[in-house]
Amino acid sequence: VIGPEDVRAAAIVLDGIAHRTPVVYSRTLGEHIAIKPESLQRVGAFKFRGAYNKIASLPRGSNVVAFSSGNHAQAVALASQLLGVHATILMPEDAPPNKLAATRGYGAEIVTYDRYTGDREAIAAELAGDRGAELVPPYDDPLVMAGQGTAALELLEDAGVVDTLVVPVGGGGLIGGSATIAKALGVRRVVGVEPAAGNDWQQSFARGERVAIDVPRTIADGLQTHAPGLLTWEVGKALVDEIVTVTDEQIVAAMRFAFERLKLVVEPSGAVGIAAVREGLIEAPSIGIIVSGGNVDAQGFAKLLAST
Amino acid sequence: VIGPEDVRAAAIVLDGIAHRTPVVYSRTLGEHIAIKPESLQRVGAFKFRGAYNKIASLPRGSNVVAFSSGNHAQAVALASQLLGVHATILMPEDAPPNKLAATRGYGAEIVTYDRYTGDREAIAAELAGDRGAELVPPYDDPLVMAGQGTAALELLEDAGVVDTLVVPVGGGGLIGGSATIAKALGVRRVVGVEPAAGNDWQQSFARGERVAIDVPRTIADGLQTHAPGLLTWEVGKALVDEIVTVTDEQIVAAMRFAFERLKLVVEPSGAVGIAAVREGLIEAPSIGIIVSGGNVDAQGFAKLLAST
Repeated sequence: VIGPEDVRAAAIVLDGIAHRTPVVYSRTLGEHIAIKPESLQRVGAFKFRGAYNKIASLPRGSNVVAFSSGNHAQAVALASQLLGVHATILMPEDAPPNKLAATRGYGAEIVTYDRYTGDREAIAAELAGDRGAELVPPYDDPLVMAGQGTAALELLEDAGVVDTLVVPVGGGGLIGGSATIAKALGVRRVVGVEPAAGNDWQQSFARGERVAIDVPRTIADGLQTHAPGLLTWEVGKALVDEIVTVTDEQIVAAMRFAFERLKLVVEPSGAVGIAAVREGLIEAPSIGIIVSGGNVDAQGFAKLLAST
Repeated sequence: VIGPEDVRAAAIVLDGIAHRTPVVYSRTLGEHIAIKPESLQRVGAFKFRGAYNKIASLPRGSNVVAFSSGNHAQAVALASQLLGVHATILMPEDAPPNKLAATRGYGAEIVTYDRYTGDREAIAAELAGDRGAELVPPYDDPLVMAGQGTAALELLEDAGVVDTLVVPVGGGGLIGGSATIAKALGVRRVVGVEPAAGNDWQQSFARGERVAIDVPRTIADGLQTHAPGLLTWEVGKALVDEIVTVTDEQIVAAMRFAFERLKLVVEPSGAVGIAAVREGLIEAPSIGIIVSGGNVDAQGFAKLLAST
C-alpha cells in the first residue's frame, strides 16, 4: 500500500509547515523511553500531517470534503486554508460548539447533519459529487497514512535507538504510516494500543481478518472506530506485531501523569501509549511512544480526574 | 554584576545537561509572539539552569545548602546529584509531601524547620557553617542569575527577531540574567511581570530604590518575594524598562489558555507573562515570553479553575 519512501516524501512536503514536535523523556516512566507529543502539533494532533500531505497533492483551486467531529476536521480546515483550497466539513449538528467554531475559524465551510438519522458517508459522497470535490479520508488513504507516519520518522531521527514503537490505534492511519517507516529503519517491534472497550484491532489480529464491533463506549473518543480500515489493515497485519488494550481508568491515570510529570496536556486517545507503558504492558530495552493529540478542554480534564 | 559573556559561559556549562526547551507559537495570542516554556525544563522550571551553573563552579566533593519550599529545592537537589555534590535542603516541615518526596528522590538530605518560629536564613547559614557547605541562593548570585539567563538566550536564538522580552519577576534572577543577554543581543525592551498583590518591583522602580512589602497573597507562589534582591535590583534597575502587574484571575485565565491552546501545563507564576500579553498590557511588533515553570498538580489546577 505504501512504502518508507512515501513517508520520506511526505516529510519533505511537511518540512517547515508541520511543527517538528520535540521528543521528551521522563525518568519516572522509565529509562530509554522517548515520547513524541503530537499534542504540540498544529491543531493539537498528528492529523494535520496526513491532511496536509493529502491536500498538497491536489491541484490548486481544488475543493475538498471531509467528515469528522474531531481533530481531522480542524486538520483538513487548516491544511486547506494554508494551501488555498476550499474545504467543506461535514460535522454532526450537536458537535461541541468550540469544535465547530475552531473549524470555521480556519476558514472551512461547515455542513451539519443529524447523527441519529443521517449517514455521514453517503452525505459526504453526495457533497463531494455536487461540488466536484475530493474526499479527504481521516486514515484510509495512502497519502494520509504516509503523512501521519512522519511523526514516527521524526521520533526515530531524534530519539536514537528505539527497540519498540508504541502507537495509538483507531482507524490505523498513524500506526500504518509509523510501522512502515519504523520497520524500514530497524525498529524491532511495533505495538498498537487501543481502548479495552473497543478492541477491534486486537480481535482482527486474533481472527486474521478485519472484525467489526459496535462503536465502543470509551473516553478515548478519537479511537472509537468500529473496524480497521481496508488499507490500514493491509499495512497493519503485515507490520504491526502486537495490540494491547488499556482501560479508561488507566487512560485517566496516564493523562494525570502527563500533566504532572511531563507538563503536557494529552487527550484520552493520546494517552493510551503512556498508559500501556506505565501499566507494565510493554517492556523493552528502549521504547518510543507517540502521543497523538492534546485536544481536551480544561473543564473536561477536571471532570475526568474527578470521575476516577 | 554580570555581563552577557557570563550568560554565554553558563550556556556552555549547561549544554547537553539542561533541556533546550522548544519555542512555541499561538496565532490566537497574536502574530510574532514566541513562547519559551521552561515548564518543560528538568524539574519543571528554569531554576535548574541557575542551580546547575552555580554548583558546577564548586570543587568536586563540595557540600551545598539551600532553602526553598519550591522549584529551587528540586533544582539544587538534581543539579547536586548530577555533579556528585552532597545537598542539604532546608524545607518547612509543612511543605507539601510530594515536594518533600521529589526533593528527597533526587538524593538530597532534607532538614525541616517550623516556618512560624524558625528563621530559615539563620538556620541555613548555621547549617552551611557546621558542614563547611556553600549556600546556593535562589536568585541573588551572579552565577545563578547567569544560568537563569540562558533561557532568554535560547529563546532569542530560536525565535528570530524579538522587540520586547516579557519575563516573570520574583526575586529577579531570571529577569536579571535575561535582560543582560537580551539587551546585548539588541532586544529593545524588557518588561517584567509580577502579581498585582505583590508589586515590590513596580514600587521599587517608582521609588528608584528597593522597596520591601508584606509577603503578598497570590496564587503565584513562586513570585511571593517581598523585595528585589540586592544584586538582581542592580541589574534590573539598569536594564529592565517596565514592570506590569496581573491579577490572580488573569493568571488563571492564562493557565487555562495555555492548557487549551498551547497544550502546556503552566504553574501560576509561570503564566504571568502570557496573562500580561493576553490582557493587552504589553504591545509590541514582536514579543518573546518566558514561561518559568509548570509545577502545579492536576488537583490544584482543577481547583484553581473552579474558583474563578
